[in-house]
Amino acid sequence: MNAPLPVQLLPKIQQRETPPALIDSLMARFAERCSTALVVREQHGRDESSFTSPPPAAVVFAESTDDVAEIVRLASQHNVPVIPFGVGTSLEGHLLAVQGGISIDMSRMNRVLSINAEDLTVTVQPGVTRKQLNEEVKSTGLFFPIDPGADATIGGMSATRASGTNAVRYGTMRENVLALEVVTASGDVIRTGTRAKKSSAGYDLTRLMVGSEGTLGVITEITVKLYPLPEAISAAICSFPSIEAAVRTTIEIIQMGVPIARVELIDANSVRMVNAHSKLSLREEPMLLMEFHGSPTGVKEQAELVQELANGHGGNAFEWASTPEERTRLWAARHNAYFAAMQSRPGCRVISTDTCVPISRLADCLLDSITEADASGIPYFLVGHVGDGNFHFGYLIDPTQPKEREIAEALNHQLVSRALRLEGTCTGEHGVGLHKMDFLVTETGNGAVAMMRTIKRAIDPKNIMNPGKIFSL
Amino acid sequence: MNAPLPVQLLPKIQQRETPPALIDSLMARFAERCSTALVVREQHGRDESSFTSPPPAAVVFAESTDDVAEIVRLASQHNVPVIPFGVGTSLEGHLLAVQGGISIDMSRMNRVLSINAEDLTVTVQPGVTRKQLNEEVKSTGLFFPIDPGADATIGGMSATRASGTNAVRYGTMRENVLALEVVTASGDVIRTGTRAKKSSAGYDLTRLMVGSEGTLGVITEITVKLYPLPEAISAAICSFPSIEAAVRTTIEIIQMGVPIARVELIDANSVRMVNAHSKLSLREEPMLLMEFHGSPTGVKEQAELVQELANGHGGNAFEWASTPEERTRLWAARHNAYFAAMQSRPGCRVISTDTCVPISRLADCLLDSITEADASGIPYFLVGHVGDGNFHFGYLIDPTQPKEREIAEALNHQLVSRALRLEGTCTGEHGVGLHKMDFLVTETGNGAVAMMRTIKRAIDPKNIMNPGKIFSL
Repeated sequence: MNAPLPVQLLPKIQQRETPPALIDSLMARFAERCSTALVVREQHGRDESSFTSPPPAAVVFAESTDDVAEIVRLASQHNVPVIPFGVGTSLEGHLLAVQGGISIDMSRMNRVLSINAEDLTVTVQPGVTRKQLNEEVKSTGLFFPIDPGADATIGGMSATRASGTNAVRYGTMRENVLALEVVTASGDVIRTGTRAKKSSAGYDLTRLMVGSEGTLGVITEITVKLYPLPEAISAAICSFPSIEAAVRTTIEIIQMGVPIARVELIDANSVRMVNAHSKLSLREEPMLLMEFHGSPTGVKEQAELVQELANGHGGNAFEWASTPEERTRLWAARHNAYFAAMQSRPGCRVISTDTCVPISRLADCLLDSITEADASGIPYFLVGHVGDGNFHFGYLIDPTQPKEREIAEALNHQLVSRALRLEGTCTGEHGVGLHKMDFLVTETGNGAVAMMRTIKRAIDPKNIMNPGKIFSL
Repeated sequence: MNAPLPVQLLPKIQQRETPPALIDSLMARFAERCSTALVVREQHGRDESSFTSPPPAAVVFAESTDDVAEIVRLASQHNVPVIPFGVGTSLEGHLLAVQGGISIDMSRMNRVLSINAEDLTVTVQPGVTRKQLNEEVKSTGLFFPIDPGADATIGGMSATRASGTNAVRYGTMRENVLALEVVTASGDVIRTGTRAKKSSAGYDLTRLMVGSEGTLGVITEITVKLYPLPEAISAAICSFPSIEAAVRTTIEIIQMGVPIARVELIDANSVRMVNAHSKLSLREEPMLLMEFHGSPTGVKEQAELVQELANGHGGNAFEWASTPEERTRLWAARHNAYFAAMQSRPGCRVISTDTCVPISRLADCLLDSITEADASGIPYFLVGHVGDGNFHFGYLIDPTQPKEREIAEALNHQLVSRALRLEGTCTGEHGVGLHKMDFLVTETGNGAVAMMRTIKRAIDPKNIMNPGKIFSL
């Protein structure tokens, strides 16, 4: 592994000119669906990250693949960047127009195109959100498990290789996208796969596009896997005397091969913030939130085994839920953690970390980072998809205090360096965006990043597809 | 979808010159590990396909990543192709030196480098075979589930995105390779991932390399997932009155979400051939072979449900096995099908098909193709990983009768066209190689293949990495 590089908040911005002729062409073609109003541009020039950049020159609301292809063709003629925009929930600056250009708003491409319940697949437009998708397939007895927290679009989730709480059992977008339709940098439309469950037909363009953050093409259609709703679902929360005890329990659950559907850690800080926010009285101790899917007997078996493992580490105060309402109540702590944290320090911004390490290294990685965070004086909370070795510190910084951001970035830098030493990754699910470009080089080495750049240059020779993300170019 | 293109048996062969200076350099560097003996070259110039081509100019036995890098660098200086060779079990002509060049024999790079039992991962050299791997990890209580039938190397299985009987539960090489070390066309060494279970760190080079059939680089190290050996394993065979009944049972098993570990179809022809070959007296009817993994209760539950579904389609004569010995006996019919078929027509060659369709289309795809095969007069057998919608006809042709090959290829062409109409793929697990190049275009369209070519040209500008496979170039 190379030596860690210094943190760099934003790469040098090289805004490219958007010629008035392009705006004129877009206006002529899309009329009121092309907006240059500052408020619209500003809304499309930011995401949930704490980065800022001048907004895009225009926003075009696409309603079809043909629209997207036409926008890309026009932008290509003028060498102007295009940036696909779903609902703006990305966390690492993916949506910022760092080199200027046109934002393509995909949110109106929000139709579920075909549900193939017999094959457990569904094909959707990119603007469909995960909650909408689950609503629309509900009557089939199937569901789409990937849950990154935010009600993100399936297009955005594909572009960032998202995952979340259910990934420990159902995998990430990497495992759950079967095929894509993509508009390429030349404005051509390609398909990257079929509805067959597996294939050895040539290069895996589907998975090359998944996680490419809009830099290789604009995703205009996605076929994903669905799963039968489990016959039985049971949820539990359990408090532990220490983070370490909770983590060691998780490690054993995974190593024993328990097919747990969710196993989430929240720290005592989070519980405290959630209690204040939601007027609850949860024990202010580290907590695991778990969910079991299967047959009634299977769920019972899993739950008993997990209870035994938890008891071995001092886990107690198990609380169980099996109806949807009770489950929602139990999970409130996890679901509200982010907003409860925001509320705990009014006006703050959250700097979120996203490391993921092999499960055996999880305790090492976490405990040292907690010591550092505690010593820093920056308020924080900690939540994690610990079954996958993935966790997030949320450092709550005062955006008016540059020093606080500096400290938070330094903490993140130490954490990422530690995760990489422990054979992990700088981003488990949020993506590289603008924030992790240097870490990516440290993680994969110059050779791999050089190959990524080579692919990008070959597929997008004018560098118009969301340029300046993942690596500088 | 484009109109199906005519079958083309072998692309026009453009043998490239291998200059004596390159052979001299390889000899100087590798001494007796570089062979130009005809018998060695011929052994490395063929695979299990029925294609023929002049052998490579030399074979070099690599023993380290540095060896591979050095071979590639030397070959690159002379613009000469390199073709990685594991144990020669590929089925579509992947190993043939259609443009001449050097075969790199990887079989001596056969060390298991590190077993991380706590993380359920293992890192191996590419020449390790799957049986060897399972032998070496046995004491940890873990296993590697991917089983393509042949005792292939992990390197070769990665290169062709192999899968096999367990894929219905455990996925394919696509889902099970975590990270690779790869020697690129310039002789550089890159790493494509970490041991973290998931990552959003840049382009998914791991999955770009998996299934690239040696055309983008030589895989020199592979980290794969392992799984805890199930607490209980139970196997069953069940005969059905018709293929359709067996297939309809399978479809219901999958749609109900039963986590079956294996569900294999063999047709009555196969059973007949196996009975003759192994002196057995199995019912000469279509048969499902199944395996269930889980806790004792879980396995029992799965088995009961499947039995009920099978009974609904006239499935009977269930035979169960739970000890390893009994399981081996039950599975003999499946494992011996290929050799039993070969023996049923001495001197024959097998033309194997490899389509995979969405599960709801499986009966349609299979039944019409059986009618065609029956009408052709060519002896055949049929086996399938039907839980994934993937199956193989084996047409047993007399290699001295060109007419028979023509008929078999025509049958395959009809089958692939049907599978593509039903939203399936021309290759579920064997790869494109030389055999499916035209089908790949029909399946994915010119645009996707053009993108694959663009990537290939950018990463391998001299076109020296196993050229002429997947697409003509």
